[in-house]
Amino acid sequence: DPKLKIFALNSNKPLAEKIAEAVGVKLGKTSVDRFSDGEIRINIEESIRGDQVYIIQSTSAPVNDNLMELLIMIDALRRASAKTINVVIPYYGYARQDRKARSREPITAKLVANMLETAGATRILALDLHAAQIQGFFDIPLDHLMGAPLLADYFLTHHLDENAVVVSPDHGGVTRARKLAEFLKAPIAIIDKRRPRANVAEVMNIIGDVKGKRAIMIDDMIDTAGTITLGAQALMDAGATDVYASCTHPVLSGPAIERIEKSPIKKLIVTDSIALPAEKQIDKIEQVSVGQLMGQAIKFIHENKPVSPLFKNRFH
Amino acid sequence: DPKLKIFALNSNKPLAEKIAEAVGVKLGKTSVDRFSDGEIRINIEESIRGDQVYIIQSTSAPVNDNLMELLIMIDALRRASAKTINVVIPYYGYARQDRKARSREPITAKLVANMLETAGATRILALDLHAAQIQGFFDIPLDHLMGAPLLADYFLTHHLDENAVVVSPDHGGVTRARKLAEFLKAPIAIIDKRRPRANVAEVMNIIGDVKGKRAIMIDDMIDTAGTITLGAQALMDAGATDVYASCTHPVLSGPAIERIEKSPIKKLIVTDSIALPAEKQIDKIEQVSVGQLMGQAIKFIHENKPVSPLFKNRFH
Ligand SMILES: Nc1ncnc2c1ncn2[C@@H]1O[C@H](COP(=O)(O)O)[C@@H](O)[C@H]1O
Ligand SMILES: Nc1ncnc2c1ncn2[C@@H]1O[C@H](COP(=O)(O)O)[C@@H](O)[C@H]1O
Repeated sequence: DPKLKIFALNSNKPLAEKIAEAVGVKLGKTSVDRFSDGEIRINIEESIRGDQVYIIQSTSAPVNDNLMELLIMIDALRRASAKTINVVIPYYGYARQDRKARSREPITAKLVANMLETAGATRILALDLHAAQIQGFFDIPLDHLMGAPLLADYFLTHHLDENAVVVSPDHGGVTRARKLAEFLKAPIAIIDKRRPRANVAEVMNIIGDVKGKRAIMIDDMIDTAGTITLGAQALMDAGATDVYASCTHPVLSGPAIERIEKSPIKKLIVTDSIALPAEKQIDKIEQVSVGQLMGQAIKFIHENKPVSPLFKNRFH
Repeated sequence: DPKLKIFALNSNKPLAEKIAEAVGVKLGKTSVDRFSDGEIRINIEESIRGDQVYIIQSTSAPVNDNLMELLIMIDALRRASAKTINVVIPYYGYARQDRKARSREPITAKLVANMLETAGATRILALDLHAAQIQGFFDIPLDHLMGAPLLADYFLTHHLDENAVVVSPDHGGVTRARKLAEFLKAPIAIIDKRRPRANVAEVMNIIGDVKGKRAIMIDDMIDTAGTITLGAQALMDAGATDVYASCTHPVLSGPAIERIEKSPIKKLIVTDSIALPAEKQIDKIEQVSVGQLMGQAIKFIHENKPVSPLFKNRFH
């Protein structure tokens, strides 16, 4: 019977520990560091011949370093005769470069998929890909997990679902908002951003009823936090009693933390798909772990059981 | 007739300018920068449909960023219908990871070759690859240029060839040393590093006659400069009148600059395959440009002429 082994790279060790614990194995022995000139040096310190190997790595910032760590690790595992190389990517970087929005743009999300396959990945386990179409960028099996049930769990256990309305910050996110709304048994609203004329500030128009209600915004990722904080203000202006925000991937780059601090957002609920450095762990931000969810998914994959029941219902 | 276009990425713009000048074209318009979260954003700002495109990029430090810039640029050019995508890599990073020296090591130099091909490169132009075998890692045409003739030119025009002996810092570099020695009409010597017992300092034994001679060391790259500075001291101890050093690729990481300053090396002659930041531009280091050489090579490739005559003889 081939053994199940889990290896963590450097992007998100705390999550990798939680996943390994949920699976009930210890993390595999490996050292991943740098040569003097900055090139990545990887040493796998135990035999993995014939094993089913899972690598945990988010391609969050520094994205290029984390991606190269992952590719080099896959290369090393393949050459060391791993039976399968299952790549667990809680956060898939470059996901927004998923189409040519203008002429002569790259499609880096597809390039990354090609590189993972070329390196030797045999399966992908992903979480809330920015666009579901990225699944089709791969020709190997991909399981796609959802963070919404976990975020729902937070709002339910903290009794924040009463008199709530779930708000999508844009039209692209309505499916995700509806999913959360189902769990919370709440109605939905949509923020309709429009620029009346060129070079004129955007107007945030709210479709749906938020007056006198608790607004709960949900997005797949929050990067510079411009949309979510402006949206929160628009919701307050429209008479919401208070505003919560949530997302799966806390990218939180540039002015994000400052904007969130200054905004009317009461709490921002995120997952640990991206590890937060100390300076981003502010009181307003609450992290719920996807460790159990991803660990269960790994167990199901290893046992050839379908993964989707894990998030079709509320997950605990 | 398809047009010849040259694009520079961020690793070595000064060299790219020199190459474009040697070819007689202007660098193509492109912007290569970062999104707020550190992901690479590339915009090609002119049509390249049907063109023969050359990209200039060294995968020197920061190696992962420079490599990803290159891969994403190739992806964008391919999707924008470039006729050919010729990748000019003056310095090929990860070249030392070219074999499994121990169990379960990656072969990153091959991974990089696979990634360049997967992205869409149709031809490679390289300079002094750490191992000539890396040519075989590619299934697309690769032209391999040599820096030794340019380094020879420096020693000849500065009249440093009289009473000289060319020294290889190890047994692996003898072919390169012999090449330089031919140009300088000088004999060769070899430094034979041996560790008499485990945990005992290495002994530098010199094979060949250096007493009363000017020693000229040559290597393909100098990284932390340990080997070259210890070798220089051993050559002085063996009675050399003075010591010069030379290499194609000035990696110069970690303690390199300090070691070179403190060593008996009189001058270190390097090429501009890697751009030197201000703090590495010290008096002892002299840079000769490979711009003319690489520019000529690009012209020859574009005109379907053989490239090797460019370095079979002394190059000016
Ligand atoms: N890392 C990034 N940060 C900000 N914008 C990005 C990033 N990557 C891609 N984009 C842009 O985001 C847009 C796609 O975002 P979306 O419409 O939310 O799918 C495209 O126009 C991309 O050029
Ligand atoms: N960036 C690097 N810096 C220092 N050593 C490296 C680097 N990459 C690979 N190596 C090691 O260098 C050795 C190969 O060097 P060489 O014998 O000169 O070809 C291998 O044992 C590698 O593990």
